[in-house]
Amino acid sequence: MRTVVPFDPRNPNSRLSPVLDDDQRREFAAAMLADVLDAVRGAGGDPEVLATASPDIDVGVPVSVDDRSLSAAVQGEVDADLPVAVVMADLALATPESVRGLFDAGGDVALAPGAAGGTNGLVVREPGFSVDYHGASFRDHSAAAERAGLDVAVVDSFRLAVDVDDVADLVDVFVHGEGRARDWLVDAGFDLAVRDGEPVVEPNA
Amino acid sequence: MRTVVPFDPRNPNSRLSPVLDDDQRREFAAAMLADVLDAVRGAGGDPEVLATASPDIDVGVPVSVDDRSLSAAVQGEVDADLPVAVVMADLALATPESVRGLFDAGGDVALAPGAAGGTNGLVVREPGFSVDYHGASFRDHSAAAERAGLDVAVVDSFRLAVDVDDVADLVDVFVHGEGRARDWLVDAGFDLAVRDGEPVVEPNA
Repeated sequence: MRTVVPFDPRNPNSRLSPVLDDDQRREFAAAMLADVLDAVRGAGGDPEVLATASPDIDVGVPVSVDDRSLSAAVQGEVDADLPVAVVMADLALATPESVRGLFDAGGDVALAPGAAGGTNGLVVREPGFSVDYHGASFRDHSAAAERAGLDVAVVDSFRLAVDVDDVADLVDVFVHGEGRARDWLVDAGFDLAVRDGEPVVEPNA
Repeated sequence: MRTVVPFDPRNPNSRLSPVLDDDQRREFAAAMLADVLDAVRGAGGDPEVLATASPDIDVGVPVSVDDRSLSAAVQGEVDADLPVAVVMADLALATPESVRGLFDAGGDVALAPGAAGGTNGLVVREPGFSVDYHGASFRDHSAAAERAGLDVAVVDSFRLAVDVDDVADLVDVFVHGEGRARDWLVDAGFDLAVRDGEPVVEPNA
């Protein structure tokens, strides 16, 4: 399965800025991307990166640059060649097994929800689908499939639902991560602590 | 499968207080509980409520009251009779299928992660397991099983991972909910809107 992984090498995961500086965010984003590409390959997919600008790192897979909005750039990929999968670059918990669940879900369109209304994984097999990552994209993607007469399969996966775009999400990377993203956090001096009964990720004292 | 659903009828889901007043929070919590009990029954489970105080509503299943900490009260259930499942009361997206995934996961211990390090679903089949919901409970429960020589199965489910304890979680209830909790929000005058590209749940204008 051709699998497009949208990636912003310029200002990735900006909501992590309370704990990571700009260079750290770029390094951490590259680590998450590498984990996602591994998971896609492990699931039998052929990953390619769809970047907002030319990455200054070698990501090891074909890269195309498209500086339009995420929705427009992904729509271009959907219109170009089907079937296609789209998997977000910050799914640091993704495993070959969870990505395979997306590939094998069936449906003209398969959707893996992201937390808070998002769409973290998408497979389009038939023409006519409209991409819209703005707002509650899961709802909009379900409606777009219905308008086009396409049936939808939904993948129920926690590992695909966690997109690491917030400081609180780092807890899940620590608890459930198995790849480079977790290693990067450990090497950068972060650890899991408990404050007022709640787990938090914070720099080692 | 005997399935214990811990429930706090006094001050439930306190982090929803920015949008729901005390009475609303109690009503909404009761709606989520009813959805969870339905999902457990639909999965073939026998639900019972483990409450911190006597609920002033009829929940339609056996209720036991235990005002100790969540961990101590659940440990009491685990020590009393095995196998036992424990499913949180605020899993508003739980369906019979997702709960069945927990029941059928195998393992001496089965764990369904909650977002941010939690444990939203638990099955204990063999003695020796220690319950600890404080902090990063998923990690602690994995370690507790290992210490007791029990093998662990992990359930990868978004529907079981979303515990509605925060205003942002209401978006997922709107987008993915199919039961009383979603109906309650609609009847109470809430709707899904998009602000700065992000979905939010807010009172109708």
